[in-house]
Amino acid sequence: MVFLSEIQLRTSGHRDMHDLTEQTVQIVEDSKIQNGIVHLFNIGSTGAIGAIEFEPGLQQDLPNILDRLIPPDRSYGHEQTWHDGNGHSHLQATWLGPGITLPVRNGKPVLGTWQQIFHLECDIKPRNRTILVTVTGD
Amino acid sequence: MVFLSEIQLRTSGHRDMHDLTEQTVQIVEDSKIQNGIVHLFNIGSTGAIGAIEFEPGLQQDLPNILDRLIPPDRSYGHEQTWHDGNGHSHLQATWLGPGITLPVRNGKPVLGTWQQIFHLECDIKPRNRTILVTVTGD
Amino acid sequence: MVFLSEIQLRTSGHRDMHDLTEQTVQIVEDSKIQNGIVHLFNIGSTGAIGAIEFEPGLQQDLPNILDRLIPPDRSYGHEQTWHDGNGHSHLQATWLGPGITLPVRNGKPVLGTWQQIFHLECDIKPRNRTILVTVTGD
Repeated sequence: MVFLSEIQLRTSGHRDMHDLTEQTVQIVEDSKIQNGIVHLFNIGSTGAIGAIEFEPGLQQDLPNILDRLIPPDRSYGHEQTWHDGNGHSHLQATWLGPGITLPVRNGKPVLGTWQQIFHLECDIKPRNRTILVTVTGD
Repeated sequence: MVFLSEIQLRTSGHRDMHDLTEQTVQIVEDSKIQNGIVHLFNIGSTGAIGAIEFEPGLQQDLPNILDRLIPPDRSYGHEQTWHDGNGHSHLQATWLGPGITLPVRNGKPVLGTWQQIFHLECDIKPRNRTILVTVTGD
Repeated sequence: MVFLSEIQLRTSGHRDMHDLTEQTVQIVEDSKIQNGIVHLFNIGSTGAIGAIEFEPGLQQDLPNILDRLIPPDRSYGHEQTWHDGNGHSHLQATWLGPGITLPVRNGKPVLGTWQQIFHLECDIKPRNRTILVTVTGD
C-alpha cells in the first residue's frame, strides 16, 4: 500500500524552521498503514528536512553552525550563474539533505520523545514550500 | 511485505561507534524478503547512523572531524534550554542524520566490500539505544 | 511491487560530479510503478549521492566546501590503516551520505525544476561506480 499527501508551508526566509511532526503523524494516521515507512521530501533545492529536538536553542544553533561552516557570502561559483546571492543556500540544503525516512509502527511514525522532524528554509527569501509525504507499508 | 525488528545497543558515550552490518544482514535474512529496501533508524536525537569503512582509523577520524567542525563547548543556545552540555551532540547527530536506507537484492542488503553501517553515539553519556530496522519489499 | 536496476558510471576522480536525474526518470518509467518511492545507492564507501541544482557553479562549490571543511591532507587515522591517501574521501562521502530517496508520483520521480540528483566522486582516482536503483510502490 502507498499513500501520498502534501504539507504546504510558508517560510519567512533564511534560517526559518518549522516542526513537521504533528502533520506527519496525522498523514500516517490518515493512510491507515500500520507498519512500514514514511518519507518526507522538500521539492526544491534550497530547503532541508531532518530530525532534531525542536526547541528554541537548537532552532538558533542549527542555522548558526550552517552559516559558520558554509557562510552566506558571495564568493560562490553559483553566483556567476545566477547572481541571486544564494549559493550558500544551495550548499547548506545539499549538505543537510532534502528528505528523511522514518519507520512506521502500529500506525504511527516512530520518533524519540525529544526527536522531531524539521523543515529548514535555506533560501534568502520567504518561500512557499511543498513537502511531499509518502507512506508505504501494510 | 513489511518486516520490523530492533537492534539494541549499549554505547560508552561521545564518539563511540558500533558496526551494525552483521545484525542488519541477519534481520534481512529473517525477513525472507528477497528484493526491496532496508531502513535503519536511531530512536532519539543524539545518535547518528550512516555508512563508512569500519576500521580503527576512521573510527577516530569521523568523531574528530565532527568535534573540530561542531565543537563540544558550551556556547550553544541549546544550553540555555537544558544546561546538559550536549548542544554539540544534537548538532552532530542532526548533520549526519538518524538513519540510512540500503537496497536489498537476493535476500541481502547491498554494500561495498569496504562499506559498513555504523552507529555513532553523539551524546556525552553512555546510552541504551534502540535502532528500528524496517525491511520492505517482496 | 519492487523494481531493481543499476546505473553504471565512470568517474574521473576526486570532485567529479554526474547528473543522474535522466537515468532515474527512465528507470522509474521502466518500472511501471505509478506511486511510491525510488532509492539510489552508491555501492562503495568513497562516493556520495544527493540533490542539488546541477549547474557549473555548484559543481565547483560543492567539492570546494568539502575540501575546505574536510581537507585532502594525510593527517587522518585512516592513513595509518591503508596508506592510500584517501582519508578525506571517506569522510566526505560519509558526511554527504551514499544515497537518496525520492517520491514517485504519476510514474515520475518528483523533483523541483532546479533540483537534480548528483553523484559525487570523493575518491582520489578514477573509479567505475555502480549505483543501485530500487523503485517500490504500486
